[in-house]
Amino acid sequence: LWDDAPRWSGWGPPGAAARTLPPTAAPLLRGLGVDPDDVRPPVALEEVALAPPRLDAAVRDRLARVAPVFDDRPARVLHAAGKSYLDLLRLRAGRGDPAPDAVVVPRDAGAVAAVLAACVDTGVAVVPFGGGTSVVGGVEPLAGDLGGVVALDLGGSSGLRAVDERSLVATLGAGTRGPAAERALAERGLTLGHFPQSWEYATVGGMVATRSAGQASTGYGRIDELVRGATLVAPAGVLALPTEPPNAAGPDLRQVVAGSEGVLGVITEATLSVRPRPEVRRYEGFAFPSFAEGVEALRAIEQEHAAPDVARLSDEAETAVNAAIAGSEMQGCLAIAGWEGGEEDVPRRRAATAAVLARHGAGEQGEGPGAAWERDRYDGPYVRDALLDHGILAETLETATTWTGLHALHDAVGAALRAALEPWGTPPVVLCHVSHLYGVGASLYFTVVARQADDPEGQWRAAKAAATEAIVAASATITHHHAIGRDHAAYLEAEVGPTGIALLRAMKAELDPAGVLNPGKLLP
Amino acid sequence: LWDDAPRWSGWGPPGAAARTLPPTAAPLLRGLGVDPDDVRPPVALEEVALAPPRLDAAVRDRLARVAPVFDDRPARVLHAAGKSYLDLLRLRAGRGDPAPDAVVVPRDAGAVAAVLAACVDTGVAVVPFGGGTSVVGGVEPLAGDLGGVVALDLGGSSGLRAVDERSLVATLGAGTRGPAAERALAERGLTLGHFPQSWEYATVGGMVATRSAGQASTGYGRIDELVRGATLVAPAGVLALPTEPPNAAGPDLRQVVAGSEGVLGVITEATLSVRPRPEVRRYEGFAFPSFAEGVEALRAIEQEHAAPDVARLSDEAETAVNAAIAGSEMQGCLAIAGWEGGEEDVPRRRAATAAVLARHGAGEQGEGPGAAWERDRYDGPYVRDALLDHGILAETLETATTWTGLHALHDAVGAALRAALEPWGTPPVVLCHVSHLYGVGASLYFTVVARQADDPEGQWRAAKAAATEAIVAASATITHHHAIGRDHAAYLEAEVGPTGIALLRAMKAELDPAGVLNPGKLLP
Repeated sequence: LWDDAPRWSGWGPPGAAARTLPPTAAPLLRGLGVDPDDVRPPVALEEVALAPPRLDAAVRDRLARVAPVFDDRPARVLHAAGKSYLDLLRLRAGRGDPAPDAVVVPRDAGAVAAVLAACVDTGVAVVPFGGGTSVVGGVEPLAGDLGGVVALDLGGSSGLRAVDERSLVATLGAGTRGPAAERALAERGLTLGHFPQSWEYATVGGMVATRSAGQASTGYGRIDELVRGATLVAPAGVLALPTEPPNAAGPDLRQVVAGSEGVLGVITEATLSVRPRPEVRRYEGFAFPSFAEGVEALRAIEQEHAAPDVARLSDEAETAVNAAIAGSEMQGCLAIAGWEGGEEDVPRRRAATAAVLARHGAGEQGEGPGAAWERDRYDGPYVRDALLDHGILAETLETATTWTGLHALHDAVGAALRAALEPWGTPPVVLCHVSHLYGVGASLYFTVVARQADDPEGQWRAAKAAATEAIVAASATITHHHAIGRDHAAYLEAEVGPTGIALLRAMKAELDPAGVLNPGKLLP
Repeated sequence: LWDDAPRWSGWGPPGAAARTLPPTAAPLLRGLGVDPDDVRPPVALEEVALAPPRLDAAVRDRLARVAPVFDDRPARVLHAAGKSYLDLLRLRAGRGDPAPDAVVVPRDAGAVAAVLAACVDTGVAVVPFGGGTSVVGGVEPLAGDLGGVVALDLGGSSGLRAVDERSLVATLGAGTRGPAAERALAERGLTLGHFPQSWEYATVGGMVATRSAGQASTGYGRIDELVRGATLVAPAGVLALPTEPPNAAGPDLRQVVAGSEGVLGVITEATLSVRPRPEVRRYEGFAFPSFAEGVEALRAIEQEHAAPDVARLSDEAETAVNAAIAGSEMQGCLAIAGWEGGEEDVPRRRAATAAVLARHGAGEQGEGPGAAWERDRYDGPYVRDALLDHGILAETLETATTWTGLHALHDAVGAALRAALEPWGTPPVVLCHVSHLYGVGASLYFTVVARQADDPEGQWRAAKAAATEAIVAASATITHHHAIGRDHAAYLEAEVGPTGIALLRAMKAELDPAGVLNPGKLLP
């Protein structure tokens, strides 16, 4: 049943060997104060401590009448956490709790509604579970003040359900993972074009619920821009939004479903804009003397409507570290630009982008860096597992702000992370890249690595709090594409204000009056 | 105070002479069974029947302590209706009621909040009033079950408040009309690029509240796509959404403010994406043998990313009527394509569009039709006034659907209008054009003209109901850019379902628990 799920302790298929770091990473490890030969793998599944399931037999039977129920160790541990650094620290150390008391796998929207009704009746919390790839605690099985918690796995609601090729929209079951969606669409000559780093395991429903952005979203659009229709099953009823162009029929409820994070309901399917599969994909490197000059160049390509589909710019630190791991050296900053489309279209658009970049001092680096980026584009979570094997703190965080605020934000978050980790005696390496472009601004994606302290959770919580406070102080968004989950919930009010929180709570109270859906997430 | 407002009885400045129809329109009038020499102007302002204001002195004083209050005849009549056909029928015939009991003009967001508090305390309904250009009854001064109603005119909250030129965003007071916004932005070399047909009088707040689309929104984006920040003052509190790029911080409350139609709160300012003012504007005509072929061509330019900024395609009837009024003849269908931008950019983009159109059988008509469109682009409401002077039913309605559904929708709405007006003995002329392109589909904009029946209101209500029911039956949206207002409220549930309505009602109850804001609008 969980054949296409990642291993419980990290990333990649359960049976495969753990990824190891290349020898070129050894100096980085030593620089952090880590011995490259000291390897600490996760405990075995059998060693994970798990409290017994709390559901009594009547509740379990009630659930089993509407959907298959699993409460074996592999199912519970697989659904016990997402894939954040804190999640992995916990599971790798064998701390399984909180784990769901059971995992239910309803086969369709009707069964989802029946599961919700059963949970309302029996006072059990429900955590909607798609790919389980949340890095913000979005799938942590918290029971809130209820007597138990189940993970509602959307694996039963997957697959390509309908395609309208003239209108370029496809309806996909919420549980459809990225590769399955692309395979099914490819048979029709189509692509969703949505490739978050978690793509191998992320599901369509999870993407919509978290407003995800893919690596090519500068071109294809964020998932919230692609949503044309959706079905959200809530305890109070089903919100079925038809497939329509943008319109003026009141507030856009699609944009309430997008970002609802399993707190307002369970997304069971979504109708998304798709595109013809590109005939050509071309990714290239461009070098800039400095991050500041690179940012100006990215601003120009976006605001002059010459942006590629993929656009990223590493800061000096990320550029240097990536080069070192690749066994080379590089000064300044490396940008990757990528174009996807027709055979005539791509060269034309590439020329438009390159002309603007050249005007801003870019040096063309050719397709070599592009090929390297493409090869490694989904590697982050594997590398993190390997870093954790070496006792290293390795986590990412992200934000977005206006072009005007971008430099101050970059500096403030980096400074906050360094200052927060200094007292722990674990000076970090902080890497950053711009990953998505908008007319108004761009996102910043930070990677933090440091030696783990004796209290690694406290260490990271301190660093994360400092970074988030710096983000809030800069009036930037607390999350560009990772979502709110558990980890950012306390900060949402800083972003949308008390009236925004009250409005979200009113939506929650209407759709989930008993409060069974995903307690402790999204709302403070 | 109302210097820049349109005349109470229609469109254009109060002092100017009424627009007349060109002699070429006479055959059209005769074809409808109308005598071109029979002219019926509106009554004089002094003849408009008005019930006395219902606010007692204590309530009026309470309001006057927080904002200027007007209850003179000109102020009340000017705020007694929007600019729909039914609105104009009523006012032109001298039926002023319902009129607001008073018009209040708070000077800033704080005063707006104080007005709302006073209205809650005294049980008076509040109709937020921007440009007053609603064509769906959005500003009808309905008191609901309250004892009085005031129009809250946003004229006190106007002007360009801030510009971030690096991030291309501008903050505008809600009461800023289209021309004032463009003038202020032009001084900074910028444009909002948002030009609905109502642009001369429409306000920024009204545009956002109704999710308006401008004539160039295929290129610049709908107003809801341009909103990066907004302030919504509600009785329960102020929702102040900061200026941010798209993000993943929960449901997008900007898209709840957009489309809130004065029912959830009063938009007092908005921060909108702007662009550098175009150096070049180029509009051209393209001819197609049929509407079907033209639609295919528009689909191709949009889905192949070769769309212009302005894209419209008249059906055979609209093409023929427009040609006749211009004193010429034309078979088939005329499309207008327009590009705005830099001197290098426009020819390049124009070539890309033209190449795709040519592949789909377009015949180039040059800049003549483009110039004619540009000259007349805001003329619709003036022409309607002239048609009403001739005792003609003249109204528009609009919808949008997928490319797959577009032809059936076009035919069904036209057939419904003809069938509904046939029993009145007033066969209509129904004109239609595609006005906005999306990957998933496009909008259809219908113009209906017919001889007025003895019961012109009943006549139009029957036709409008038939058209809307055809739209609902086709699963198309009940409004692409006119909004819901009073006229579409009964149909919103068909579009968003009972759970969608419940969700919107929950938002309303949270933000406006006393229900003073814009009774009878948006929600059924």
